[in-house]
Amino acid sequence: MAEPVMSEPIRIFITGGTFDKEYNELTGELFFKETHVPGMLRLGRCHLEVEIETLLMIDSLEMNDTRRHRILDRCRTCLERRIVITHGTDTMEHTAAVLGPAMGGKTVVLTGAMVPYQFGSSDGMFNLGTALAFVQNLPAGVYVAMNGRYLRWDNVRKNRELGIFEAVR
Amino acid sequence: MAEPVMSEPIRIFITGGTFDKEYNELTGELFFKETHVPGMLRLGRCHLEVEIETLLMIDSLEMNDTRRHRILDRCRTCLERRIVITHGTDTMEHTAAVLGPAMGGKTVVLTGAMVPYQFGSSDGMFNLGTALAFVQNLPAGVYVAMNGRYLRWDNVRKNRELGIFEAVR
Amino acid sequence: MAEPVMSEPIRIFITGGTFDKEYNELTGELFFKETHVPGMLRLGRCHLEVEIETLLMIDSLEMNDTRRHRILDRCRTCLERRIVITHGTDTMEHTAAVLGPAMGGKTVVLTGAMVPYQFGSSDGMFNLGTALAFVQNLPAGVYVAMNGRYLRWDNVRKNRELGIFEAVR
Amino acid sequence: MAEPVMSEPIRIFITGGTFDKEYNELTGELFFKETHVPGMLRLGRCHLEVEIETLLMIDSLEMNDTRRHRILDRCRTCLERRIVITHGTDTMEHTAAVLGPAMGGKTVVLTGAMVPYQFGSSDGMFNLGTALAFVQNLPAGVYVAMNGRYLRWDNVRKNRELGIFEAVR
Repeated sequence: MAEPVMSEPIRIFITGGTFDKEYNELTGELFFKETHVPGMLRLGRCHLEVEIETLLMIDSLEMNDTRRHRILDRCRTCLERRIVITHGTDTMEHTAAVLGPAMGGKTVVLTGAMVPYQFGSSDGMFNLGTALAFVQNLPAGVYVAMNGRYLRWDNVRKNRELGIFEAVR
Repeated sequence: MAEPVMSEPIRIFITGGTFDKEYNELTGELFFKETHVPGMLRLGRCHLEVEIETLLMIDSLEMNDTRRHRILDRCRTCLERRIVITHGTDTMEHTAAVLGPAMGGKTVVLTGAMVPYQFGSSDGMFNLGTALAFVQNLPAGVYVAMNGRYLRWDNVRKNRELGIFEAVR
Repeated sequence: MAEPVMSEPIRIFITGGTFDKEYNELTGELFFKETHVPGMLRLGRCHLEVEIETLLMIDSLEMNDTRRHRILDRCRTCLERRIVITHGTDTMEHTAAVLGPAMGGKTVVLTGAMVPYQFGSSDGMFNLGTALAFVQNLPAGVYVAMNGRYLRWDNVRKNRELGIFEAVR
Repeated sequence: MAEPVMSEPIRIFITGGTFDKEYNELTGELFFKETHVPGMLRLGRCHLEVEIETLLMIDSLEMNDTRRHRILDRCRTCLERRIVITHGTDTMEHTAAVLGPAMGGKTVVLTGAMVPYQFGSSDGMFNLGTALAFVQNLPAGVYVAMNGRYLRWDNVRKNRELGIFEAVR
């Protein structure tokens, strides 16, 4: 029996977020350098066919409509039908809400991290694993993958008190 | 819209494997203590409804038919329809081959690690993330989740030279 | 032959600093919880006779004269003659300068970290190791232990461009 | 006041030991590749003047007289008067006993680790920190630096039940 899903290439769009933050030891502040996703895929011994493209490298509080439409545009124009987006958790649901109604026949999974990958106690590797697995089997649509779960773009919010993503209804 | 899959509880059966090995600093040998899976789920901020049950704590080279049938028996009798099994990589395909033809309407995903979770450079968190995501959406059947991919029980083998899992055909 | 130095107990005063900072995953800010020094000593399989006492848990930019005199007071009144102080790096030299002329016959070693211990890429373990070793053998006086070196309180400054401690002359 | 000790260069001889062991993910066995000491010194932001030289890369159970005399010979002939040797813990005291009576005016500190540096829970960074600090201030002689302490070559043994180094008398 063929395994068609497995052979489908996946596009990973990087937009920054806590996921990719680093600690600047001279200033004591968090900042962005380069994405850790390639190193994370090596650590995960990942052998999926993925194409990584850095669109932005920002805190998601700096995400705005212009930037969201740039992400939307790249999701539409890229050749792959299966897309993972790394994104800060603070506004992930808003970006999902922009992509959701406009994505057509593609499967898009947004994910992020509560703690920077570099900081040891990060959920980043786990989340990246779930996102890459969900994107292979979920039907066309836009989803958030956090806390081991996937939530559709029109039914997800970040519970800021608990730091978890949950269904709205 | 309802999200029925998400609310389904998942059973995690622990059988040991590299995943859960520790370093004995007095003897310099690897050994098993307790499973790291609960700690890994905490690190992943996982909020899935999971039930963890340790069936075995062995190197998969010590896996035999009696033990495989014990695993099979528990997969059949447990209430959950979605099951993840942690397993050593050396004989994972053989356990999958015992479970595959006999599983009926359940979705079972076996996963493991090439490097112990405790050793820092482990693929364990990534693999556990993919396994928990695959098990939520794959149709009934038995699969191996390694290297970011899922492979059906009747089409999987470990490539020992490369240390990766691949399709047979 | 006796080994008198080894049997001398060491007092460790905790004052906070980067060393003990944590990442708050709900706010994305750094904060203090409890000191990591006991856990670090366990990791180092340290069998020195140490007494750990938390005096402050602050960023060293919040260090002021009142607080420095509290540290000085405890250094003078504690029973031990060998003292390690964990301290933020930004004002470590200023605290050393307050302690230096007033310490009498005790050996005091200040140390810290450029990156929080929790963040994986920290110099904390290395620095704590050097501080605990220096304090056992240096003559009475006040020193800063950073970058593998020890520097006397009247000949040390932090080079903020390079993030290292160096002799003034 | 001058700080003469600080400016003295240190020679680090690598001989292998648990310190530098790696996990072979294809065979599940421990092995040696290259020493981690340079990376450890970078992590420690160490700015000492050190020269690293790999003499051996072996389990200390494979240490023998020929190899010990090679180490002794290099300790004698190298230009530095302050020397750190990384060594497996199982026979560290025996190598110290060969070097001790023959070292003349040099300060030599042997150190190692109970858990490989790569495995996350290692005492390696702490021990390397203490060894590099002890070697700067101890008088000429041969010492073992483990568990935060230093022990003279003629008064040290590994307590194999506890996994710690202790004075004989």
